[in-house]
Amino acid sequence: MKDYIKHDEWCIIEEGFHPEHNEITESLMSLGNGRMGQRGNFEEKYSGHTLQGNYVAGVWFPDKTRVGWWKNGYPNYFAKVINAVNWVGIDVQINGVELDLAKCEIISFTRILNMKNGTLRRLCHVKMENGNELELVSERFCSMAHDEAGVINYAIKPLNFNGDAKLTPYLDGDVSNRDSNHGEKFWEEMDKEAKGSEAYLQVKTKKSPWDTVPQFTVSSGMRLKFYQGKKELHPISLPVKKEKYIGFTYDLPLVSGQQTILQKFAVNLSSENHPAEEHFAIAKEYLNKIYHLGFEVMLGDHTKAWEEKWKSNDIVIKGDVAAQQGIRFNIFHLQQTYTGEDARLNIGPKGFTGEKYGGVTYWDTEAYCLPFYLSTAEQNVARNLLVYRHNHLQKAIENAQLLGFKDGAALYPMVTMNGEECHNEWEITFEEIHRNGAIAYAIFDYINYTGDKNYLAEYGLDVLIGISRFWAQRVNWSEAKCKYVMLGVTGPNEYENNVNNNWYTNLMAQWTLKYTLESIEYVRSTSPERWAEIKSALQFNADLEEDKWEHIIEELYFPEDAERGVFLQQDGFLDKELMEVDEIREHRPINQKWSWDRILRSCFIKQADVLQGMYFLEDQFSTEQLERNFDFYEPMTVHESSLSPCVHTILACKLGRLEKAYEMYVRTARLDIDDYNNDTEDGLHITSMAGTWMAVVKGFGGMRIKNGEVSFAPQLPAGWDSYSFRVKFRGQLKEVNVTKDGHTVKDLK
Amino acid sequence: MKDYIKHDEWCIIEEGFHPEHNEITESLMSLGNGRMGQRGNFEEKYSGHTLQGNYVAGVWFPDKTRVGWWKNGYPNYFAKVINAVNWVGIDVQINGVELDLAKCEIISFTRILNMKNGTLRRLCHVKMENGNELELVSERFCSMAHDEAGVINYAIKPLNFNGDAKLTPYLDGDVSNRDSNHGEKFWEEMDKEAKGSEAYLQVKTKKSPWDTVPQFTVSSGMRLKFYQGKKELHPISLPVKKEKYIGFTYDLPLVSGQQTILQKFAVNLSSENHPAEEHFAIAKEYLNKIYHLGFEVMLGDHTKAWEEKWKSNDIVIKGDVAAQQGIRFNIFHLQQTYTGEDARLNIGPKGFTGEKYGGVTYWDTEAYCLPFYLSTAEQNVARNLLVYRHNHLQKAIENAQLLGFKDGAALYPMVTMNGEECHNEWEITFEEIHRNGAIAYAIFDYINYTGDKNYLAEYGLDVLIGISRFWAQRVNWSEAKCKYVMLGVTGPNEYENNVNNNWYTNLMAQWTLKYTLESIEYVRSTSPERWAEIKSALQFNADLEEDKWEHIIEELYFPEDAERGVFLQQDGFLDKELMEVDEIREHRPINQKWSWDRILRSCFIKQADVLQGMYFLEDQFSTEQLERNFDFYEPMTVHESSLSPCVHTILACKLGRLEKAYEMYVRTARLDIDDYNNDTEDGLHITSMAGTWMAVVKGFGGMRIKNGEVSFAPQLPAGWDSYSFRVKFRGQLKEVNVTKDGHTVKDLK
Repeated sequence: MKDYIKHDEWCIIEEGFHPEHNEITESLMSLGNGRMGQRGNFEEKYSGHTLQGNYVAGVWFPDKTRVGWWKNGYPNYFAKVINAVNWVGIDVQINGVELDLAKCEIISFTRILNMKNGTLRRLCHVKMENGNELELVSERFCSMAHDEAGVINYAIKPLNFNGDAKLTPYLDGDVSNRDSNHGEKFWEEMDKEAKGSEAYLQVKTKKSPWDTVPQFTVSSGMRLKFYQGKKELHPISLPVKKEKYIGFTYDLPLVSGQQTILQKFAVNLSSENHPAEEHFAIAKEYLNKIYHLGFEVMLGDHTKAWEEKWKSNDIVIKGDVAAQQGIRFNIFHLQQTYTGEDARLNIGPKGFTGEKYGGVTYWDTEAYCLPFYLSTAEQNVARNLLVYRHNHLQKAIENAQLLGFKDGAALYPMVTMNGEECHNEWEITFEEIHRNGAIAYAIFDYINYTGDKNYLAEYGLDVLIGISRFWAQRVNWSEAKCKYVMLGVTGPNEYENNVNNNWYTNLMAQWTLKYTLESIEYVRSTSPERWAEIKSALQFNADLEEDKWEHIIEELYFPEDAERGVFLQQDGFLDKELMEVDEIREHRPINQKWSWDRILRSCFIKQADVLQGMYFLEDQFSTEQLERNFDFYEPMTVHESSLSPCVHTILACKLGRLEKAYEMYVRTARLDIDDYNNDTEDGLHITSMAGTWMAVVKGFGGMRIKNGEVSFAPQLPAGWDSYSFRVKFRGQLKEVNVTKDGHTVKDLK
Repeated sequence: MKDYIKHDEWCIIEEGFHPEHNEITESLMSLGNGRMGQRGNFEEKYSGHTLQGNYVAGVWFPDKTRVGWWKNGYPNYFAKVINAVNWVGIDVQINGVELDLAKCEIISFTRILNMKNGTLRRLCHVKMENGNELELVSERFCSMAHDEAGVINYAIKPLNFNGDAKLTPYLDGDVSNRDSNHGEKFWEEMDKEAKGSEAYLQVKTKKSPWDTVPQFTVSSGMRLKFYQGKKELHPISLPVKKEKYIGFTYDLPLVSGQQTILQKFAVNLSSENHPAEEHFAIAKEYLNKIYHLGFEVMLGDHTKAWEEKWKSNDIVIKGDVAAQQGIRFNIFHLQQTYTGEDARLNIGPKGFTGEKYGGVTYWDTEAYCLPFYLSTAEQNVARNLLVYRHNHLQKAIENAQLLGFKDGAALYPMVTMNGEECHNEWEITFEEIHRNGAIAYAIFDYINYTGDKNYLAEYGLDVLIGISRFWAQRVNWSEAKCKYVMLGVTGPNEYENNVNNNWYTNLMAQWTLKYTLESIEYVRSTSPERWAEIKSALQFNADLEEDKWEHIIEELYFPEDAERGVFLQQDGFLDKELMEVDEIREHRPINQKWSWDRILRSCFIKQADVLQGMYFLEDQFSTEQLERNFDFYEPMTVHESSLSPCVHTILACKLGRLEKAYEMYVRTARLDIDDYNNDTEDGLHITSMAGTWMAVVKGFGGMRIKNGEVSFAPQLPAGWDSYSFRVKFRGQLKEVNVTKDGHTVKDLK
């Protein structure tokens, strides 16, 4: 755990430079606008620890799979979010000496991420090796109003000398991923151009052996403006051209006490959005526009866009600055990562803040992110997340075929970019099939929240049928139990592998079958023509398949312990030595201290999937049942998944255990800011941030949607004076205000 | 399956060149003498498919582990048997054109491995690109009589031209492993020397980051002799020196119809056997000796050594040439791989025939190879195999500590060179712990066969106690079952991973505990002083530990199906859909056609471990029990482990099912010759060859050892006229002869 970030309601502030934590700070201070994003790297060269990262949404590379021991069925590649053109770079030389903060004496330093308007500012006073003292002020943002543009205002002021500065702003596509499987660079140069103070660079991802994987072309452009004080300068541009790189060098005289400003206007275009051959023309026009708008107007537009977002999103907590900062940090990054305007995109586990975990789409999207966007964005945003899976249905059917399933059964991938599986660890890739359940549940969740039942006929039903067909083939009849069983799965609790009858997976399978039958009935009765179309397209044998599903729903096996009155996580769970987490305090985190086999045969739980099931389908269970299961599983849960504590907060709130709920809440809200898991340097835990939001709104706020109505049952944690949050429900923005005296729910606007 | 190898009682014959199978033939025709070995590569350059391989026993490299997803507890490296100096190489130019069989017209070609005397001969008539026709006859062997030496007789005869030959015999250490994890070469040059027609090269394995891993120095020397017809030549030597390479070039005039012979005498010394700084001096002396003995005398000594081996080893089968060839092939390669003279060595899964599977020691050694060497070699050979594990006890204790065990519990590695684990696949490395049982059982097996009960006090008991301590910690008390259970294991049937209560593993654990208690009792009563020593050295708490072990023996859980009267492979086995292998004919081999999860949740068995347990401990079970279990498991067994069919042969013989026994036998005896599994090109299945031997001797021959007596109960497979085999039992060589009229057992000599 780290605590060098200042507590502040709206800002993430590093006061004084912490080079030992620089990669953490770079993650925390990442910027993005849904279309592109970047880590909080310095503009000028930095020779200390840094993970350079610039990302363009939807652009990736199929990095050839590398495993120790190949298992039949592994995918060919692991899709990587790739480090793209560095458009923030500005090399600086002062009197012939390169400016590099790793080599300067730092006299003062502040780096601030302002979450209110999504800007990153840096102010520092340094003394260079040659004794020159310099003040550096930089500010930049990825525009929310013009989402293919970013702007930097970079100012230097000599404090104790006159002299020369050589500034080299550039676009650099000769970048690599730290975690590439074969040490390969993913880009090749297509074109570049430099004229006046404008430059353009076009790069394309390398051709892969897999023809289902597109090549992506990304073009970046920059246009530069200089000021000395208020006066615009027009220095001479000297182009610098290298492989996959273009820049300009400017020689500028420096006068002690006078500020020299370089403004870098940049655009990034992707072939996903514009034909590659038109990129440079579009970029020129785009740059021309924003250049003439200027930095201040651009900043104004950007700030306004953020104000709009906060209006419908903000959660205000009084009396607990750390909690306030934590929740805003989470909301801020979620908004930066996904705006929901493009159904081809999804929410990567690290967003635009790092490379790790490659592909962008996990079950996190449906289980954790969807509820956030349902409540905080326009309806089409959540809908696009669903349509994304709809569009991947054929690939999910092919994926299931690879594993031996047939007749239109669909298994969605564990991790994907374009619908193809790109995870390769058999116990997860092939066995963590509960993801299919979450994808089905998301359809219910969306319709339950929005009332948009037409979604079923339009897009939802074929996905539900594909998934139900999978479940129906994945179970088998056990002669021994005279029940259907589901063998060889890994549940959300990934600290068990290859178990039989994971209660959660069976529950979600059974639920999917029921919901699919209901949905078929609904579409059959409300849109008979559409139903006829679907039935024929899917070659759906209503008699046979529906009967089989009914039978499975009736006869599916669920492990339980009648004596304790609890559901059992899986077959054989009670053969374990049952202990509580408190008994192994000094062994934690067990995923760093124990070998894998020891974790597997212990009773300890990464995230409690029985409780996850009771959270999803709470109406199927009584509060007493929930209480017994919570009391059984919570003490064995180590919460070593960032997705775990939020569900416990919600359930603890339901059980009126506010102290436990709060304990769980703090674990999740400041996970990244305080670097709880020692891995913030790799990037932020974007998807679990949505869980934090849920912990407040569904947990403390007690929001539930039933029969088309939203309700709240707020509770106030002991340390808070009050809190308020806003949610959109069926077109109406509502504000819930909770104080020590009670709560109000207000319709806004 | 391939059938290009001619059936022959004593030879492996490739008639006509099969370049498409060249790597298979190279594997089949490998030579070795326990100290070194090599694949059947051509001496001259070959640009077609070839896997170059020369190996020196006990020399390896710790290749840094490479996995897709790291699991806590994985070892740092995977130990590789490494490709060492190529000492067979002779480059040949004829009239300026390089001799390369891939570029010649092959007029006739024969390659013969003579198993009677361990020589590899090649005779061919080729037409080169320039029209020159050439006869090439080469013969070579790794001397069994002088085990650091090898000799080559390489003769060329121009058939339709006079001209010039340029011969370049060399020693080349600039070689690599095809399967290196990081594309690295493992050797660096230390020294080289060339003088007259003698050359020496010393190479050393690179320094690794792990200080428990030694660096190995290998020195090779060669001395050359030339003849034209019977006349010795003394052509001028021109040294050729390159990095890690030394050779000589000789220009020789060729006369049509006249044979030119190059004899290459070579030695290979390892720092494991001689101090590196003395290598060149020893090599010179050694070369001087064998050079003066000459090729014919060397061949005579070598042939005599093989005669001795066959005298005590041979199995003669009449009426079935394919079976005869198969069994001799297996015996031959086992003898080439391990001679038992050095307790630091062991039996690699590929011996000296390929690189695959890295490290040399698997549980195959104890479960399959030990019985072969017990019956066919001097007692010390088998004893050395046991002492090897004794010497690794401390490492096994450390290995167990890494996984969280304590108080002297020992877990032997899955794969090792020096006692350190070097396998990295969690479901095997950490969970396939039954290997510990086989290592304990080997001690019993050895003592039962030899009567050498002193071995217990000397070496055996501490190993048994270490293993028993492991079992005692590895089980846990299940409150649900009121029994001890063993969770999270992988049995010998590797088509199940991470199961609970694998019957075989539990059986071997229980047996180990019993046998350890008996052994303690024996040593306590017969060597009380030694017992006191052991007890104190191991800090053995007799009261506590023995009581605990008794309790586990009493209360260990064994899954079974009372109704069918069969033991169950593991908990939950009966939840599977039970099918027979016949129903999935077109899906086989399932390890190539099914994804891993499908294999895991199917009932199909790689090797039936319940039957393996009943084979090891046959006296604990009635024939009726065996029959029921055999009939339950055999039809579900796909035998996709080369270690599987031999056990089924033995059990089928016991049940009097000779047809089934024979069906199983042919699967194993010609596995490599006929390339059943499409993988002979990687090298031979050396350890399962011992299983084939067992199938004849313990299966058809019915050999059993009980109470210090050996007995036989021979049966004759329908297609055989007769067979005979020889075994050594407590100093007495016995010959068993089985004909249609009955059998005889004769004491020889």
